Amino acid sequence: MCGIVGYVGSKPALDVVMNGLRRLEYRGYDSAGVVVVAGDKLATRKRAGKLANLEAALGELPLPESSTGMGHTRWATHGAPNDRNAHPHLDDTGSVAVIHNGIIENFAALRAELEARGHELVSETDTEVVAHLLADEFDPSDGDLAGALRRVCRRLDGAFTLVVTHASVPDVVVAARRNSPLVVGRGEGENFLASDVAAFIQYTRNAVEVSDGQVVELRPEGITLTDFDGEPVSPKEYHVDWDASAAEKGGYPYFMLKEIAEQPKAVADTLLGRIDETGRLALDEVRLSEEDLRDVDKVIVIACGSSYHAGLIAKYAIEHWTRLPVEVEVASEFRYRDPIIDRSTLVVAISQSGESMDTLMAVRHAREQKARVIAICNTNGSTIPRESDAVLYTHAGPEVGVAATKTFLTQVVACYLLGLFLAQVRGTKFEDEVQGIVHELAAMPEAVDVVLDTVEPVRELARSLADAKAVLFLGRHVGYPVALEGALKLKELAYMHAEAFAAGELKHGPIALIEEGLPVVVVVPSPRGRSVIHQKIVSNIQEVRARGARTIVIAEEGDEAVTPYADTVIRTPRTATLLAPLVATVPLQVFACELALARGLDVDQPRNLAKSVTVE
Amino acid sequence: MCGIVGYVGSKPALDVVMNGLRRLEYRGYDSAGVVVVAGDKLATRKRAGKLANLEAALGELPLPESSTGMGHTRWATHGAPNDRNAHPHLDDTGSVAVIHNGIIENFAALRAELEARGHELVSETDTEVVAHLLADEFDPSDGDLAGALRRVCRRLDGAFTLVVTHASVPDVVVAARRNSPLVVGRGEGENFLASDVAAFIQYTRNAVEVSDGQVVELRPEGITLTDFDGEPVSPKEYHVDWDASAAEKGGYPYFMLKEIAEQPKAVADTLLGRIDETGRLALDEVRLSEEDLRDVDKVIVIACGSSYHAGLIAKYAIEHWTRLPVEVEVASEFRYRDPIIDRSTLVVAISQSGESMDTLMAVRHAREQKARVIAICNTNGSTIPRESDAVLYTHAGPEVGVAATKTFLTQVVACYLLGLFLAQVRGTKFEDEVQGIVHELAAMPEAVDVVLDTVEPVRELARSLADAKAVLFLGRHVGYPVALEGALKLKELAYMHAEAFAAGELKHGPIALIEEGLPVVVVVPSPRGRSVIHQKIVSNIQEVRARGARTIVIAEEGDEAVTPYADTVIRTPRTATLLAPLVATVPLQVFACELALARGLDVDQPRNLAKSVTVE
Repeated sequence: MCGIVGYVGSKPALDVVMNGLRRLEYRGYDSAGVVVVAGDKLATRKRAGKLANLEAALGELPLPESSTGMGHTRWATHGAPNDRNAHPHLDDTGSVAVIHNGIIENFAALRAELEARGHELVSETDTEVVAHLLADEFDPSDGDLAGALRRVCRRLDGAFTLVVTHASVPDVVVAARRNSPLVVGRGEGENFLASDVAAFIQYTRNAVEVSDGQVVELRPEGITLTDFDGEPVSPKEYHVDWDASAAEKGGYPYFMLKEIAEQPKAVADTLLGRIDETGRLALDEVRLSEEDLRDVDKVIVIACGSSYHAGLIAKYAIEHWTRLPVEVEVASEFRYRDPIIDRSTLVVAISQSGESMDTLMAVRHAREQKARVIAICNTNGSTIPRESDAVLYTHAGPEVGVAATKTFLTQVVACYLLGLFLAQVRGTKFEDEVQGIVHELAAMPEAVDVVLDTVEPVRELARSLADAKAVLFLGRHVGYPVALEGALKLKELAYMHAEAFAAGELKHGPIALIEEGLPVVVVVPSPRGRSVIHQKIVSNIQEVRARGARTIVIAEEGDEAVTPYADTVIRTPRTATLLAPLVATVPLQVFACELALARGLDVDQPRNLAKSVTVE
Repeated sequence: MCGIVGYVGSKPALDVVMNGLRRLEYRGYDSAGVVVVAGDKLATRKRAGKLANLEAALGELPLPESSTGMGHTRWATHGAPNDRNAHPHLDDTGSVAVIHNGIIENFAALRAELEARGHELVSETDTEVVAHLLADEFDPSDGDLAGALRRVCRRLDGAFTLVVTHASVPDVVVAARRNSPLVVGRGEGENFLASDVAAFIQYTRNAVEVSDGQVVELRPEGITLTDFDGEPVSPKEYHVDWDASAAEKGGYPYFMLKEIAEQPKAVADTLLGRIDETGRLALDEVRLSEEDLRDVDKVIVIACGSSYHAGLIAKYAIEHWTRLPVEVEVASEFRYRDPIIDRSTLVVAISQSGESMDTLMAVRHAREQKARVIAICNTNGSTIPRESDAVLYTHAGPEVGVAATKTFLTQVVACYLLGLFLAQVRGTKFEDEVQGIVHELAAMPEAVDVVLDTVEPVRELARSLADAKAVLFLGRHVGYPVALEGALKLKELAYMHAEAFAAGELKHGPIALIEEGLPVVVVVPSPRGRSVIHQKIVSNIQEVRARGARTIVIAEEGDEAVTPYADTVIRTPRTATLLAPLVATVPLQVFACELALARGLDVDQPRNLAKSVTVE
């Protein structure tokens, strides 16, 4: 999931490329590099670490002026994140430069072949082989860099976006795409390409789709699209109506803090306009008939990371409202076992970016088996929604912090809406019942606001636990996915060993971890929902406390049964049983964020991570 | 899941009780206590910690001679594991003694009522209320202790085994059971009761079943069974053919080491006699017609702890061989959501003891919904098999170490057998195909033996990592449940933060935990099974290594693709793809056990745990 930018035109290429990389740093920040074509030479600069390191290097040692260039910000897959493994990679003669997002699966064989032909490879990356292959394939007499790239692509296994410049064709940037994001921006006498429109939106809002298996050649005067065999393809243009300023920090020191604060609005926006004039719920795009949806006999939710936790919450709601069985599976496992799916299976794919490679591959596999696919995504027009039968967008706005916050909450809302939509279409809920729940959902932005207004004690608690070695999380029923999400936030942001358990599993092994003073966060479901679940979790709190744990209990307003056994109680407003995750998650986001800040960490760009995960 | 022993007869009661408690310490070891009836007084001794503490206290301060007594070894639920909260609990006058396994859910209300009547309660336990209630209910004029206990039981919510003595009826022990284990041993002029036959097997092999909702009165001359309303019940007697000597350590310093070493035999025993003379597979007890099994349209596996991991492996095998969809869920969550099950659902309940309360409750719920239930258990005649429609026993023999080893491996074998049985009945495999897989299974005891013979480097590795702060585990496909089981062993035995991830999930968050030198164990599936899974996990190994992790790779013999990226490679024999967990788990058991020993810990009785978990 590296970030990629390319430019040809009349502006200083380096400025355009660096501006773009700043917008793409969410995709990876293990290293960064740029190349410009100056005269008939390539000039590169690259540095390990965040973009700031590269900026400093360019300040000390500027590159020559040029109007053709490209840049890369890396999330390491093959080889450590050092200067040498940073992109761009050149061939032995320094004539070809390549940047790459994805994984070349047969690189070891290609490398062996190149070395046998006398090439010397200097990095540990899979990328470098492409530069050497291109050097051999490029014929200076025809100057056809796109043709050389097509021939090389046909030899590569795996998923990739490749962008290439060559010293002998200074006004050309070419790129190829297979299962990895790439979009072209069309300007006046200049053209752009990038992993994401954010990289060039300050220059143009006219974008061109590059599909899988296509090569694009950029020149200042225009673009040419072909498939890997060289057959021309007509470009599909679209307009980007995205508000770039929404991605600014708005006065907060970190995007994550801003995004946590935006959650009431994000939840409200996701609910907005979902009820049509006849009082019925509506999705954004549905290319499925109601009859198709009535034929569904099971639902499989596929997702990764936080989206998977949203899927676990969806299981409780959809099963309860529709009596359809729901399975939830991490996308990377789903794809490669033999999942039992057919045209009566409804697959729900949840991905913030709409580009998560694991989820995309699972969607494709499900569609090959004739399943219907509904996508829940935050990014309009991204790949997963494009390849699905229906889309329900989360209107969270751009999320820059790597750890999901507002997109998670809106995914949960979208799952509720989908459950209600299915209940409505299949007749398992009367319309007044659906509207009753929609009415309760409509009160959730205010409930989240109440949590945010009363969250200061959570911040204090987090600061007091900055030196804890580990934190455990327990939950039952819908509180269990909330506990998982709370633990994941703490792992991502504070690099702490934070593991969540279904509270009933504790005594089957993990309780051995409990020792004097260990903080244990317990997410308590409402006692008004099913009292036996509540009684059992109160027993679990006593079990860990009897063994010395420091108990931090998240419970709804008025639940006094937990008080005698809690060292700290965090109160959330009363909500319907199934909707409680929308309020219970928020203190855990704040807890993880504040604890990471108290440890002096960067919560927007945690180590090793990237926002959009476009490799498997 | 406390351990309970009671005795009336002519032998010194304290000897009988202490011998029994030694056999039951696997059920809990937070504290222990005994009571004898001497003259018209009760004499008790109790101590926090393991049984050895109580033995020392009895040595210093002996109890008077008596031929009536009872004893308890505790796994704490309510109140810390100290002397005061240890059982037995007495009433204010010291006339009634109660020991208890389970949870009295309405104890807070009962305690308030007793205090209002002037009783003074001294412990934090739920148990003590029973002693005070009995003191009020017992009428010295009729001396009917069983009647008093019946009246008290009718007021109690929750699950319990209660055993009671009273100073004024010195030749009587009475006990009551609701959803918690209790078995009576019938002798000549003496009678026994206990949580498990192991406690009295050295004295008698004639056992009597006590069912839920029954009260038993023990006198030296005989036993009387009634229900809670006082209606007589005829006792069902059975003979125990269990070999007590099998539970001895056999020369190993710890039961766990012996049980790891016994795995080839346990696997072989579980396979023994499964093929009948017509070449067809057979289960132990099947009270289901083949037609019932052909009607099944989905399988739900319910289990806890290690058994849950066996269930995850079952999913891959059963889906692959039968194309029936399989869901796997932890029992404690399954019971309390609204699982969608009907008479076409086959529920597979996996429990070593056959007494795990979470699993038992889930089985009962499933049967109420008319599902068919097949039990996979290691303990003949225990509750879960008795309440199921069919049973497949794992013939692992008694397992004393609290962390499951040989019972886990045999559960996996039983799951394979069940999958093959379903494939045979439903015709999704030809008989020669089934026999082909049975043939491969038959080779597994030897393969496990090979692993055990070559495991010394794993021991060295474990010792070298004794001071590690944490260990992560990664797996894909059937390697993922193996990774989960490896992590659970390390949690249970070494109290280390050991978490397992589906390798594809790593980059969606947990990779933030990777830092220089962090040990990461990767369970690699066979490259001969599905090469793309293998390629992806090799990429995952590179990803964590690029960030400084110390990679410990479990891979089959001849898989050289992992070698360049592994700091340590642990080799396992080649097996069929789906059977690999049987060999890949073993080095992880040894790793956890040796690491815990290097830290100076007791691997047979890890802190906070109990072998058989009979509370929810």
